[in-house]
Amino acid sequence: MKVGIADTTFARYDMARTAIRELKAGASIQIARYTVPGVKDLPVAAKKLIEEEDCNIVMAMGMPGAAEIDKMCAHEASSGLIMAQLMTNAHIIEVFVHEDEAPDERSLAYLAEQRTVEHARNVLDLLFRPERLTQRAGTGQRQGYEDAGPIESSGSSGEVR
Amino acid sequence: MKVGIADTTFARYDMARTAIRELKAGASIQIARYTVPGVKDLPVAAKKLIEEEDCNIVMAMGMPGAAEIDKMCAHEASSGLIMAQLMTNAHIIEVFVHEDEAPDERSLAYLAEQRTVEHARNVLDLLFRPERLTQRAGTGQRQGYEDAGPIESSGSSGEVR
Amino acid sequence: MKVGIADTTFARYDMARTAIRELKAGASIQIARYTVPGVKDLPVAAKKLIEEEDCNIVMAMGMPGAAEIDKMCAHEASSGLIMAQLMTNAHIIEVFVHEDEAPDERSLAYLAEQRTVEHARNVLDLLFRPERLTQRAGTGQRQGYEDAGPIESSGSSGEVR
Amino acid sequence: MKVGIADTTFARYDMARTAIRELKAGASIQIARYTVPGVKDLPVAAKKLIEEEDCNIVMAMGMPGAAEIDKMCAHEASSGLIMAQLMTNAHIIEVFVHEDEAPDERSLAYLAEQRTVEHARNVLDLLFRPERLTQRAGTGQRQGYEDAGPIESSGSSGEVR
Amino acid sequence: MKVGIADTTFARYDMARTAIRELKAGASIQIARYTVPGVKDLPVAAKKLIEEEDCNIVMAMGMPGAAEIDKMCAHEASSGLIMAQLMTNAHIIEVFVHEDEAPDERSLAYLAEQRTVEHARNVLDLLFRPERLTQRAGTGQRQGYEDAGPIESSGSSGEVR
Repeated sequence: MKVGIADTTFARYDMARTAIRELKAGASIQIARYTVPGVKDLPVAAKKLIEEEDCNIVMAMGMPGAAEIDKMCAHEASSGLIMAQLMTNAHIIEVFVHEDEAPDERSLAYLAEQRTVEHARNVLDLLFRPERLTQRAGTGQRQGYEDAGPIESSGSSGEVR
Repeated sequence: MKVGIADTTFARYDMARTAIRELKAGASIQIARYTVPGVKDLPVAAKKLIEEEDCNIVMAMGMPGAAEIDKMCAHEASSGLIMAQLMTNAHIIEVFVHEDEAPDERSLAYLAEQRTVEHARNVLDLLFRPERLTQRAGTGQRQGYEDAGPIESSGSSGEVR
Repeated sequence: MKVGIADTTFARYDMARTAIRELKAGASIQIARYTVPGVKDLPVAAKKLIEEEDCNIVMAMGMPGAAEIDKMCAHEASSGLIMAQLMTNAHIIEVFVHEDEAPDERSLAYLAEQRTVEHARNVLDLLFRPERLTQRAGTGQRQGYEDAGPIESSGSSGEVR
Repeated sequence: MKVGIADTTFARYDMARTAIRELKAGASIQIARYTVPGVKDLPVAAKKLIEEEDCNIVMAMGMPGAAEIDKMCAHEASSGLIMAQLMTNAHIIEVFVHEDEAPDERSLAYLAEQRTVEHARNVLDLLFRPERLTQRAGTGQRQGYEDAGPIESSGSSGEVR
Repeated sequence: MKVGIADTTFARYDMARTAIRELKAGASIQIARYTVPGVKDLPVAAKKLIEEEDCNIVMAMGMPGAAEIDKMCAHEASSGLIMAQLMTNAHIIEVFVHEDEAPDERSLAYLAEQRTVEHARNVLDLLFRPERLTQRAGTGQRQGYEDAGPIESSGSSGEVR
């Protein structure tokens, strides 16, 4: 199995290093890394990792800024990453941490670290033990934050018209 | 007939369980389930269920959060699900329940349950008795809420220039 | 000639009935009808009508709700309908009536009726007499509302650098 | 050379007439005209002009309304026009005039006229003398408005790290 | 190696001249330049440079205006540029400078100049020494502004559930 890691020089934390460490700790896999300037360059980088480097799955990491224009860039990148997946039938796990998700730089770096670790584990599950994802289906998992947890219904089910 | 169920670990309610129960109760069908981390991973999962698991139709379930960024994720996922359908000529019935659609967790879970049940029935209709959908065309059906019902025109029709 | 009619159970008015009546009154054509739950299911339904039912053109009718989320659904559906047209080189005439376009239910139904009638005539023109559309080019046609009409320029034309 | 003209009955000014006059005055070319109801019908019309009528380039003219929903329609149309270009490797020059771009109808018509004239000249340049576009690169050209003109840098260039 | 330069007559600064100078200073490469009216014409121009002019990579430069409609144009262009990359598996480095990014014209021109220089270097790195991009991964690089720099985590990593 080969995992592609697409990341950016724009990001302020080396999430790829974390991802590679976590992936290697969890399984014997090959890694191909591809660094681009910003998140809008990630979709084609991820697609090339899949099609030209024979990666089975890709992690696309980025750290969009807090300004309105940065939010739009992230949206365009995300849409492109979804399109790249549809064109290749391979997963590209987006690991984006928005600069305004944390109150200060240390918390932001910590969040980036934790989210990357959790998504690296998701990647390993997708590759080697997809049943573990199904076991956690609908349980409110959050990557980098405390999990929201599952909720329960009070209503009697199946009685709608 | 084979129905694909794509769902997420992010969701806080196991809508897939409900869907599978309802589908199995309504017809003799095969089920293929595919759990991914979040809604943005659903489009390629649904496409793989169609193309690699030979599903005739897919239900894509998710529970986007209430924040602005979550709304954008849901939009990107929805756009991807539509594109996946256009690339495969197969229906992917989106069953999304937004966290801010209900005032509390129990109501949210109940809504998720009901919407899933009703959409499972839509799936069965699309597969086995499409004429039943046409019978309900233009009647204001709502999944998980009370139906809005049909409206009637007071004007004399067909007289515009 | 064969016209596809894609409509929804979500809509509160049976626009398809109106469309079929108007189309049949105007020309000898075949009709294929395909009802889906909501507007986001319309793009693939329209594409299937074109590719699997050999429709030459499709009318896609829907009645999006007034809430923000409904507006987004309509946007996603519209984008998908445009993509479906580009993938098939066939027209899909979108007949959407937004729930907040009219002050009350009767007016809304009347608007839905009139818009459908006028777009059915557009469909017949596209199929059989496209020169009639060109005769009305730039004349401010509105479907379901009073036409806006043409405007005239006061400036002497053709003199910009 | 053959130029496609895609326009709408929704627009309130016959921009196509202006475009055809200007194109014919500037070069010996064939014209194919295709009128559709509204701007969302333009992308497939333009693609058909390229693929089925062998047009080398297309002008897509429209006059979106001022309301929020009209802005969204224009966005969807523009996105579709870009996609149509990517699918055909041919230019589709969008000539949209928004109803709220001018204070009154006469100014709006004048703006539509001027923008069309200038974009018709752009089309001729793209077809016959692309070097003239490069001569004007970065000079702040505006179609239908006074040109913004070029700006100059005070900084010494090339010294960033 | 051949680098495509797609630029616009709308922009108010000749970013292409800067790009070509910087590229030629850094490596022995061929250049193909393609000027179009505005940013929405860039996606197909870039794709044609890749597919018809055999460019290995493209720089797409533009200077979107400050108005709401210009922001939407830039968004549509950016989405198209990402799609063009996915269709060709080649990078198109977007070099957009928004008119409202600087307080006055001289600063804006200076910003355009610097951003172009830095992205030209990114292009050379992507072509000839991609490892240099990886060396700068996660270090907060900004094109045309002072770099944001890397951030460090205070938390102990790898300890999330």
